[in-house]
Amino acid sequence: MIKRIGKYTVKFLDEPLISSFASVVGKLESEGPLKEGFDKIIYDSHASKNTFEEAESYLQQEALSLALSKWGGKAEDIDFVFAGDLLNQCTASSFGLKGFNIPYLGQYGACSTSAQNLIVAAIFVESKAAKTAATVTSSHFCSAERQFRFPLEYGGVRTPTAQKTVTGAAAFMVESAENPAKSSKSPLLCPKISAATAGKIVDLGVKDANNMGAAMAPAAADTLKTFFDDTGKLPSDYDMIFTGDLGEVGSDLLYELLGSAGYDIRNNHKDCGLMIYDMNSQDVHAGGSGCGCGACTLSAHILPKLSKSEYKKVLYMATGALLSSTSGTQGQTIPSVAHLIELKCPKG
Amino acid sequence: MIKRIGKYTVKFLDEPLISSFASVVGKLESEGPLKEGFDKIIYDSHASKNTFEEAESYLQQEALSLALSKWGGKAEDIDFVFAGDLLNQCTASSFGLKGFNIPYLGQYGACSTSAQNLIVAAIFVESKAAKTAATVTSSHFCSAERQFRFPLEYGGVRTPTAQKTVTGAAAFMVESAENPAKSSKSPLLCPKISAATAGKIVDLGVKDANNMGAAMAPAAADTLKTFFDDTGKLPSDYDMIFTGDLGEVGSDLLYELLGSAGYDIRNNHKDCGLMIYDMNSQDVHAGGSGCGCGACTLSAHILPKLSKSEYKKVLYMATGALLSSTSGTQGQTIPSVAHLIELKCPKG
Repeated sequence: MIKRIGKYTVKFLDEPLISSFASVVGKLESEGPLKEGFDKIIYDSHASKNTFEEAESYLQQEALSLALSKWGGKAEDIDFVFAGDLLNQCTASSFGLKGFNIPYLGQYGACSTSAQNLIVAAIFVESKAAKTAATVTSSHFCSAERQFRFPLEYGGVRTPTAQKTVTGAAAFMVESAENPAKSSKSPLLCPKISAATAGKIVDLGVKDANNMGAAMAPAAADTLKTFFDDTGKLPSDYDMIFTGDLGEVGSDLLYELLGSAGYDIRNNHKDCGLMIYDMNSQDVHAGGSGCGCGACTLSAHILPKLSKSEYKKVLYMATGALLSSTSGTQGQTIPSVAHLIELKCPKG
Repeated sequence: MIKRIGKYTVKFLDEPLISSFASVVGKLESEGPLKEGFDKIIYDSHASKNTFEEAESYLQQEALSLALSKWGGKAEDIDFVFAGDLLNQCTASSFGLKGFNIPYLGQYGACSTSAQNLIVAAIFVESKAAKTAATVTSSHFCSAERQFRFPLEYGGVRTPTAQKTVTGAAAFMVESAENPAKSSKSPLLCPKISAATAGKIVDLGVKDANNMGAAMAPAAADTLKTFFDDTGKLPSDYDMIFTGDLGEVGSDLLYELLGSAGYDIRNNHKDCGLMIYDMNSQDVHAGGSGCGCGACTLSAHILPKLSKSEYKKVLYMATGALLSSTSGTQGQTIPSVAHLIELKCPKG
């Protein structure tokens, strides 16, 4: 059962379970602070494929295969797969997932796709349109640089506000709490999705594609304020509030924007873009970014800690910059969006 | 209430209403057989904007504005908007819809997006996650040619199997039949969504980007066969079975593939790509294509005839080729997908 709260938030009365999750990352990510949490490392940027794009598809394929194995079921037990990525026409998803033979509904929210996927999956499961749904997302540093900035061979110097696109993919299995499938885990060990707020497109006129944090912070502030306003909750009601990939610049702007709306999240906010790399020793400028950044951190750190009840209740909000290299070249601004889910520990 | 039927089909027991719809098209489309059904014509390919991409965004903006006006409500009454298009990173949608301030969940299914949007909207409405949801999609000949083939200035000659990307956008309002909002129409005048089958990605190895019909026909056959198998229905149970943009080549292949699966749709099949243009007098080679092709035909022809009970029960299936110009250049095949909805007249 789904109930709407306030103007924009939906509450899941039966709280769908995230019954399995897995992440596959590249070498740089495997050397960062979350290294223990990833399920598989691909050391070669090409993943033995001919192109970076094929390598990114392979990351999605591996992430979903691993999530299925950990879950203990097969692809044919999944009713829908929701997936998206940053490549033109979302080809990392379509090529990566075509072998699984699962009904496919492509999602596009740029780097907010990981949260968008989980919102849509939770609604499908809660409505009984699906018994089990899978979600997958990915990004790859090399395919993203080639498409959005410069081919790596050019050797362009990145600006200090630039973020590093995470090479990684993560997959999640969402299923009914009332009637879980042949999931390998007991519902008592699965984190739950209890509420969600889908964001509106926000555009404050930022045009600098090397400062995505600044472009996305207003959308993040809007969605978080909406969630608090709708539910009457406060930042202090959560062990932690995670954002997907605002990086250093965007996080600071989020504090400022939310502060003027009356909410202070400084004490319990973490940005996945600042968690996935060691900001002192790894050369990643303003932090990590990309669809894979939030998704892999969710899989490697947030959900494991929720499973063990080390976190009781958290918010996960992923932000996306809805630009293309064409819109940038044409002098357009960067509209952004942020989608949020409330997650609880198994006994929460 | 949603009930799953067979392995892949969902049935909407409360049958959400399509309570408003509108289409905006270009000059060529306005000269075709469906000219009476479009709500607005934009005669200038640039729509007085600086770029074709901005023009396409404007088509989406106008389509949604018109659908809202015909509905008699405001943007703030809409709980979610689902939208997608063919431009890289779906920027026609993000730029076109950013002014409406509606929670936005971007969908990507290439030219299947119009049907995908309606499936997701119907599930959101039926689950009570939304009271009213809007869906929008678009394509534009000039922006599509520049991105996927050649800039128009190059004057490339198109192959006989090539289809013409429709310049057009259409918007649809989906709402609860149990508890309709301040819709301008009585539920007794609104077509209903009664069932849906989301397709799996199908790839038979076609690589010719100038023959999308051939690439998409196997996905179309798979989804249609799945729907018939799941529901026990036959082609003869429907007044008409519409496909989105298979064109001449793809339609013939669909007959062949479905025929060998035991279903004959030759008597009551129409392809929107062959309906939107006059195939004798308009120079469109194998027919129309693009997200706007099926969507505008749905708005200009199919839904009006359902509203008046001239059709009682139809299937609408849109097909998408999940390629990018990068995947094509890299020698990849064209994976495809087809999504289907069952539509009924108001008293059906």
